Amino acid sequence: MAELRIGLEGVAVAETEITYINGEKGQLVYRGHKIQDVVRNHCFEEVVYLLWNGEFPNQTQLDELKNQLKSQRALPDYLKKIITLLPKNMDVVSVVRTAVSSIKTSGESYPPTQAQALEVLAKIPTIITYFYNNQQGREEVEPHAEYDHVENYLYMLTGKQPTMGQVKALEAYLILSSDHDMNASTFTARVVTATNSDIVSAITAAIGALKGPLHGGAPSEVDNMLDHIGTKENVEPWLREQLEADNRIMGFGHRVYKAYDPRAAALKEVVKEFAQGSHYFELSLILEEAAVRLLEEYKPGRKLYPNVEFWASGVLREIDLPAVLYTPTFCISRTAGWSAQIMEQASHNRLIRPSSIYKGKMP
Amino acid sequence: MAELRIGLEGVAVAETEITYINGEKGQLVYRGHKIQDVVRNHCFEEVVYLLWNGEFPNQTQLDELKNQLKSQRALPDYLKKIITLLPKNMDVVSVVRTAVSSIKTSGESYPPTQAQALEVLAKIPTIITYFYNNQQGREEVEPHAEYDHVENYLYMLTGKQPTMGQVKALEAYLILSSDHDMNASTFTARVVTATNSDIVSAITAAIGALKGPLHGGAPSEVDNMLDHIGTKENVEPWLREQLEADNRIMGFGHRVYKAYDPRAAALKEVVKEFAQGSHYFELSLILEEAAVRLLEEYKPGRKLYPNVEFWASGVLREIDLPAVLYTPTFCISRTAGWSAQIMEQASHNRLIRPSSIYKGKMP
Repeated sequence: MAELRIGLEGVAVAETEITYINGEKGQLVYRGHKIQDVVRNHCFEEVVYLLWNGEFPNQTQLDELKNQLKSQRALPDYLKKIITLLPKNMDVVSVVRTAVSSIKTSGESYPPTQAQALEVLAKIPTIITYFYNNQQGREEVEPHAEYDHVENYLYMLTGKQPTMGQVKALEAYLILSSDHDMNASTFTARVVTATNSDIVSAITAAIGALKGPLHGGAPSEVDNMLDHIGTKENVEPWLREQLEADNRIMGFGHRVYKAYDPRAAALKEVVKEFAQGSHYFELSLILEEAAVRLLEEYKPGRKLYPNVEFWASGVLREIDLPAVLYTPTFCISRTAGWSAQIMEQASHNRLIRPSSIYKGKMP
Repeated sequence: MAELRIGLEGVAVAETEITYINGEKGQLVYRGHKIQDVVRNHCFEEVVYLLWNGEFPNQTQLDELKNQLKSQRALPDYLKKIITLLPKNMDVVSVVRTAVSSIKTSGESYPPTQAQALEVLAKIPTIITYFYNNQQGREEVEPHAEYDHVENYLYMLTGKQPTMGQVKALEAYLILSSDHDMNASTFTARVVTATNSDIVSAITAAIGALKGPLHGGAPSEVDNMLDHIGTKENVEPWLREQLEADNRIMGFGHRVYKAYDPRAAALKEVVKEFAQGSHYFELSLILEEAAVRLLEEYKPGRKLYPNVEFWASGVLREIDLPAVLYTPTFCISRTAGWSAQIMEQASHNRLIRPSSIYKGKMP
């Protein structure tokens, strides 16, 4: 009889050279580089290159990657038409899932290649903004020939040049949400790849998993909480009320991290730089301090600290990203990680085929 | 440190009441009913009802399900347009994946419902035939108001009323390929559902996994083998040549079944009825006998018997299904099983989140 491991906690399904997490120590490492250093010193395209190749690019390699991304950003006409035809009230993540599934990369072939990954990665920001602008009854904004990946996404969202602060803030968020070990969407991508299916199938599947609220990545719930609390004076009474009722406090605690989430730490640094003095930043700081203290009081020893969503909310709010685009924006960055993991899976593949234990009727 | 279980063999990820497999004895059971009995005595819609509800429907319940399926078969205009816009040379499974992803069911909501599952199940045959007829430059064939699910699919493929023998043969194949425990596509659907994502995301993901050649389900390779062998006299010399070169014989052996695959047995019965005397049936019989004998000679103790693909080839060839539609047709039936498994997963859900073991560089 097979061994029952519902949830697969403590079961490793691969050996990997991409991402290392130490939940107890609050460490996150991409290919040997601490996430804090990566965020501080590198741009998004460098991180894509790192995740895919195992080392940072030199200037020539970086320029080449940037140019390839730029050359693949525009959507072919049929893809624009498909996006326009989708129900206007469709969830934007479902739109991204469908549009990605419509991409016919250079051969729907196995094994996956960087060229295929690049085609998908380049187009996701355009897919999001093309649908969203259309839904809002606004003009289409074509990709900007000069802007890099993150700046161009913000530009396509509004038609205006974003500030350096906005670009840096979003870039930090995208870098540190690019990969996170064997989370549910990455695992989905690997299970699909393990059948020798193509990279479009694997990324499409992963987007569907990312859509689920339990995947994590719900900074909009942190937004709602901050809106609901409203004032500094209300922080502690509101928290006590929630904790007395045994309600979950959004943005605190993580299945893996039992210390300060290193992604939250990196984002807090970024938010501090450009949001210093803003009402929500001040409120967030007070909420963070009170929540950590009261969570220890009500749930001693559980080690509940702010997670990435807590400070992601601060970033996404400050760049004026509409909440319906939070998860789609997460797709932009995680596609870099999914692609790295898909290529690694294919490089020493084995079919992933668990079993179940039958508890039903017998003949 | 997590325990390394690459491939997840011997790891059960769920308790289930849907499908029981005993590979040693060659048993396959749906909800307490042996697959041979199910194929012999029931129609496809009854099996859908059984998989979803745990028991066979009474006449009223069956009529209701058939009517609901009929009412959902037609594609909305936007979906037809999307299918027409997709690249003409796109793999048909990718078309089905994209079109399913485009369906906005009654609420992209969690938990999944039978009404949602029914919307997807009803439309897949129409999606396949709409694209295929269009690709071949043929007229669109609208769903037939009177025909049941299997007959209607064959009708939409050709515009002609199929024979009773063709319907029965395809119906047998669809019934016994509806569910098969925790195979890679079903597992994909469960991983997606476990994030509390919607049923469209889960089925879209599963289709991507089904597309992979390692998923199994490659009856077209059996076709090619039979074409290549050509004559009865060539069977044994060809087999010996392959076995001497240590090549795999398509359609023999299965990861789970170490006895005659019960699905192959059920299909062989069906093929016998309507293909008796045909060249390919005779050739298949001779090949089966010789392959089992020679596999035991070359690989003693490995217990390699015909699997479902071996006799599925016979069925699909006899109904003149083009080989490019084999895997898409598999989507029609497996959607019934995926839906059952998705609903079961949601009924006592837990996030599926394994881990990996890091072997890369450290900071």
